[in-house]
This record gives sequence, structure tokens and C-alpha cells, in this order.
Amino acid sequence: MAQSIFRGVLVPALTPFKKNLEPDTDAFLTHCQWLLQQGAAGLAVFGTTSEGNSLVAEERMNLLEALIAGDISPARLMPGTGTCALPETVRLTKHAVSRGCAGVLMLPPFYYKAVNDNALFASYSEVIQRVGHSDLRIYLYHIPPVAQVPISLTLIGRLLKHYPDVVVGLKDSSGDWNHTEAVLREYPTLATFCGSEIFLLDTLRHGGSGSITATANVNTKNICAVFEHWKKPNVDQRQAQITAVRRILEGYAPIPALKSIVAEFYESPEWKTTRPPLNALSTEEEKSLMGALGRFGFSMANQ
Amino acid sequence: MAQSIFRGVLVPALTPFKKNLEPDTDAFLTHCQWLLQQGAAGLAVFGTTSEGNSLVAEERMNLLEALIAGDISPARLMPGTGTCALPETVRLTKHAVSRGCAGVLMLPPFYYKAVNDNALFASYSEVIQRVGHSDLRIYLYHIPPVAQVPISLTLIGRLLKHYPDVVVGLKDSSGDWNHTEAVLREYPTLATFCGSEIFLLDTLRHGGSGSITATANVNTKNICAVFEHWKKPNVDQRQAQITAVRRILEGYAPIPALKSIVAEFYESPEWKTTRPPLNALSTEEEKSLMGALGRFGFSMANQ
Repeated sequence: MAQSIFRGVLVPALTPFKKNLEPDTDAFLTHCQWLLQQGAAGLAVFGTTSEGNSLVAEERMNLLEALIAGDISPARLMPGTGTCALPETVRLTKHAVSRGCAGVLMLPPFYYKAVNDNALFASYSEVIQRVGHSDLRIYLYHIPPVAQVPISLTLIGRLLKHYPDVVVGLKDSSGDWNHTEAVLREYPTLATFCGSEIFLLDTLRHGGSGSITATANVNTKNICAVFEHWKKPNVDQRQAQITAVRRILEGYAPIPALKSIVAEFYESPEWKTTRPPLNALSTEEEKSLMGALGRFGFSMANQ
Repeated sequence: MAQSIFRGVLVPALTPFKKNLEPDTDAFLTHCQWLLQQGAAGLAVFGTTSEGNSLVAEERMNLLEALIAGDISPARLMPGTGTCALPETVRLTKHAVSRGCAGVLMLPPFYYKAVNDNALFASYSEVIQRVGHSDLRIYLYHIPPVAQVPISLTLIGRLLKHYPDVVVGLKDSSGDWNHTEAVLREYPTLATFCGSEIFLLDTLRHGGSGSITATANVNTKNICAVFEHWKKPNVDQRQAQITAVRRILEGYAPIPALKSIVAEFYESPEWKTTRPPLNALSTEEEKSLMGALGRFGFSMANQ
């Protein structure tokens, strides 16, 4: 079955852990269902915000199975499958495709730094050939601040030329609007998503497809509303709201901060648990964050 | 059985791949045996030079089993076991300890950057507690140019205080002698290894234990000779030779360059195979490297 291309707001869903640091499958399913009910176009599970690289392959596959068993359509799923080791990337990608996922979000292998475009082209190429499935749809994951291995404009061009039916999109988490704009200008057929909703309107106005953003774990409806109303006159005001919430969050360690907000929403302190090497906000940081959000008038419950 | 602490020259043994990119177990065993015959004190398999993070857990464990089945004593083995995902690090470490390996070389989790010492302490702490074996000996792997997640002096101190019988050593691949000197000064009981043989004599003269160095895959005997003769009058001349060979190699992508040299030595072009995202030297680069080594008079076969 041909896969349709994602458009709109996708959420790199947070992964809840129990106190023993095992993934909490039930809480994960509940949160993913809530995100879709709020209007998310899809779920980019196992991304950076999801602590995806802190999970082993079996954990990612089990969680994916649990979402599908919980009646989340794989047409809404874009799991992260890019790892340091080619066989693991192939395994996770094959699994996602076999379960009907509409796409995968693929990091380049990120252990070695300063690798060249030939090497990264070879990496993606090997994965595509080894997966060998006509339903495979790859969204490239450009996140140089974390992966430290960028996906250059030249590399995008080579991949699009060789695999035009497979490489269909990109998440740009560079945090650099000039870079996003260059991608949108040079590759207008690519489904490009900004990694921060601060650039959502700009992305859409330049022909982009939407945003895949951490903050959509908590400010879901408001971010989705910017996408829905992006051609309407009052949209800049909506953009200002989501930008302001993002700016508040940027004052804190992003994943622990989001987990604190979600923990309060579900009234489940266990939701604050992170896997090492991340650690939860301190009580002071949490108080400061909640205070700032309260003064701004943000609430996850009332959007 | 109490593990003895490593001292001398350890080799992060290169991992050979077949043309289909599977590890070549036989060629790996042959090379590891050769390295020990040349005088290496041990093998730090699955390090950076070994493309360790390009291997999945099963591949690392199978290769380790093959070495032991091939009569390499686990007392000579220090496999790399640090990954991004806590359960994988625990699994690999448990396996290594259960097979009697005298130590493990443990990277910090390296996907997230700018994590703090508390988080890294929690990471190592969880691994140590979950492995829960009195034979566990950890050598911390500080390689900020690649991992981008340093192991600070403060973190070393905390780990030594809490786990004095477990955290016994460190490989310093910072490339910064001032840092190595600071570690040696502050933690004289730690078995500290420089990551480049350029600092071998300096490391030994400041109370360090030796070197764990990529170049020992090819210049094994000469590097071991500096360790053996380090108190003798002619040793600076020996150090000059190994430094010069290292300097030549530093002009090329290190892992592919070493694989080219080893491929020539074993008369096996397949040895040049790397896993993406690394790629082999071009014919021109290889010619240039071999020319430079030849002019210097270096040969892997005649040391």
C-alpha cells in the first residue's frame, strides 16, 4: 500500500519510565492516544525527546507493537530508527515498515564525527537497500546540536536523486531558520518539518509541511491550531502564543521540563522519571517552571 | 577471582568486515592473536578504532566468544561496553564479566550532549549496580573529540569515592596532555592510559599505566618496546620513532588508514572494508600513506 506523506504537527512523544527505569507501556499508550485526540497529525515516537536512543531495539519494537495493538493506526506513526550500528537501523526500520508505519525518522549514524557526505550517503543507501521494501518512507533527521553529524544540503540532493520515492521528508532541528529556508528553497518537493514550532508559520509560508516538535507533547492543541489556521488573518497571534510557551520552556532542560508538566497533567509523579544520562528537574527548577507557565496562563489541560 | 589491573600497551583491535559488511570472525581472531604475540598487554576490543559502536550487541558478544574459544585469555581482554542505552551497556558488561574479562572500557552514554556530572554519575552507578558482580573492573573512556561527552575530573573523583574497587582505570583520548597530567596528579591510584602513544613516555614518567592506542594495531612491537624500556637511557629515541609513525598516520582518516596497512600485511584486500559511516581510503590516499611510511622506513612486518 502506498504511504501518504505526513503534513501538520507531529509529536516526538515522551517515553514514560517506571521507577525501575523500564518503559511504562500503558502510560505511553495513554499519552499517545491523548496527543492524537488533541489533533496531532502523527507521532514521531523514539525521537530525541522520546529518549529513543536510550532504548534498546527490543524496547522500541515492543512499544511500537503496543501502540498498534492499542488501536493507534500505523498510518500516524513515524518511529525513529536511526542508530550508530547499521544492522540495528535496518532491523528497526524493517520492523516499522512491516507493521505499516507511514514513515520512519532516521538519524545518521552519530558516533563518528566529521564523516563526509559519501559515507553518510553510503549509510542511508545500505539501509534502504537492505530494508528493500517499496513502502519505506524516510524522513531525514537533521539535528546537529545533538547528533553532531549534520545532513548537508548536498547530501539531501544526492539522496533525493537516487531514492526519490523513499526519501520523502526531513525534520530540521538545527534551530537555524536560514538553514530551514535553504532546504525549503532548494528542495520544494521534500516534506520539510521544522524542529521548533517557533518557525511553524514561516515554514508553512515557505512551502514546508509542518513541525515535529517536543513542545507539542504539552501545548498540542495550540500548535495544531497554528497549522489549521495558517492562512487566516489572526494566525500571527496564535503563533505568538506558541512561541511564548516555547521560550519559557527553553529556560529549562527540555525533556525533564516536559515530563514535569505531563506528570502534573496525569497526576502521576512517576512520569518525571528519565533514564540516565538525563535527570529530572530539581524541586526548585520545577517550581520556577510551573510558576512561569502559570503567570503566562498556560495549562496543558485547558488549551 | 580477583582481576589484576592492566598495565602496558593495549590495542583497540580493528574489526575486519567481509564484503557483505558482516564481521570476519576468523580474520579478527588471527589479528588479535598476532597483536598478543607482538607483546600487547591486552586487547581493548570494540573501542572507537574497532568500529565498536557500529556493531550490535550480538555481534560484539559473538566476537568476544570467538576470541575466548580461540584461546585468547579473557585476562587479556578489555571490551568496550558503553552505549547510549543503559540496558545494552548492562547486557554487554554482564556478558564480559561472566566470560572472565579482566576489565571493560566504558564510554559514557553519548547521544545527549551537555549532560551534567550528576547524570553521568547516575549512569555509571546504575550500570555498576545492575551488573552487580564483584569481578567488574571499569576503565572509564574519556574521548571528547568523538563522544562529545567528557568524563570530568570531578566525576572521576566521585566514582572513585563510591566505587573504589570497580572503577580502576581510565583511557584519556582527549589528545590533551595537560588533561592527562591533571588526571595522573589528582588520581595517582587510577590506572591511567594515554589514548595516543605520543604521550606514552610522559604518561609512564608521571605514574601512568601505559597506552591504549589505535596505532598499536600496526606499530605494535615498537610501541611495546617503549613501555618495556621506559627506564632505559635510549628510550627517547624509541619514543621518537613511534611518535613519527603516529604523525604520519595522523595525516589520514585513522581507521581506514590502519585498515589499509593491515590489509597489505595480511595480503587481504577485504581487510580494507569499513562499515558505514566510515569509508576506505581512496587509491590516491593509500598510495600517499604507503609512500610516506616507506620513506620513513616503517613496515608492519619488520619491527
